[in-house]
Amino acid sequence: MLKVYGMSASGNCHKVRMVLEALKLPYAWEEVDTRSGRTRTAEFLARNPNGKVPLLEIESGVYLPESNAIIFYLAEGTALLPGDRLQRARVLQWMFFEQYSHEPYIAVARFLRSFHPDPASQRALADSKMDGGYRALSVMEQQLAQEPFFVGGRYTIADIALYAYTHVADEGGFDLARFPAVQSWLERIEAQPGHVRMP
Amino acid sequence: MLKVYGMSASGNCHKVRMVLEALKLPYAWEEVDTRSGRTRTAEFLARNPNGKVPLLEIESGVYLPESNAIIFYLAEGTALLPGDRLQRARVLQWMFFEQYSHEPYIAVARFLRSFHPDPASQRALADSKMDGGYRALSVMEQQLAQEPFFVGGRYTIADIALYAYTHVADEGGFDLARFPAVQSWLERIEAQPGHVRMP
Repeated sequence: MLKVYGMSASGNCHKVRMVLEALKLPYAWEEVDTRSGRTRTAEFLARNPNGKVPLLEIESGVYLPESNAIIFYLAEGTALLPGDRLQRARVLQWMFFEQYSHEPYIAVARFLRSFHPDPASQRALADSKMDGGYRALSVMEQQLAQEPFFVGGRYTIADIALYAYTHVADEGGFDLARFPAVQSWLERIEAQPGHVRMP
Repeated sequence: MLKVYGMSASGNCHKVRMVLEALKLPYAWEEVDTRSGRTRTAEFLARNPNGKVPLLEIESGVYLPESNAIIFYLAEGTALLPGDRLQRARVLQWMFFEQYSHEPYIAVARFLRSFHPDPASQRALADSKMDGGYRALSVMEQQLAQEPFFVGGRYTIADIALYAYTHVADEGGFDLARFPAVQSWLERIEAQPGHVRMP
């Protein structure tokens, strides 16, 4: 059975849970709190030298890290990942956008404001992430004002990757009321069969 | 014919050139200096709302951004991208590692030290990128001490993605002499048929 090492409050980890639930795949979930130092132990680093969750154990001793690589792997051959070459590339386009232009601003601001042990000390750093986060949300708004989902008119892992931190962007201090198309898209995702809320 | 909008000194853009040359695909290259503001013009933003190069024009009016999505698209069905499901996911694992854990340190330190108009003013910021960059190089060293290439024992787009900024990491102040397996791997890549140097 598939096993996920993950932290439930992490958007990157939640992507994996969303895909597993949408595809009705059986899995075990082992909760790993990255703040406990567990991802820096020798045991964990032997499984993922980059010391991060989520980490998927595909079979005994076969590990796959990186949230977006994991969900691409899980979605291959399913309705969550188009078969068409250009559409697959567009799914990856939005997933790389998510990791480079979205997560480092929106997820980091959220962590600093809502999960850091001393948020007041992190205020200036969190504030420095706002412009980049709003830029990413504007790019999303532009796409979603034209299309119901990011690629090919249907729900794919590109939507799941971007949903993960967007739906909790308020915890990073972002005001989603400025982005009506993004808000409608969040509702469309939450209406998908098998949708699972972040705990 | 394929057309690339790119800046030759950018590692992200150089990845696209490496793949096109390795696959002997005909293409046109339009040089775009991001420092000129061209990627922020209305004309460019209509092609890529995220305002970045590289940008691939697949056919008239059909644009694909994000370096790693572009090279995945180009490599589909070729020897540069394995057909096996797990190996494809491992290729993506290393490409997401590159964009999240490598590029933001190594490429950014290189930009600040070697391309910024006033590098002295950026010294502290560049210095703050060194630990993350060395961490990424250590993860690479560990993999390359065991395997000649990142995935499946052969040259893939995962190697091309990671080569792009690693081979010029010295311009960011990184000392590659500490990473002998990385250095041997750079030489193996430079010996590949169709290898093209960064101008």
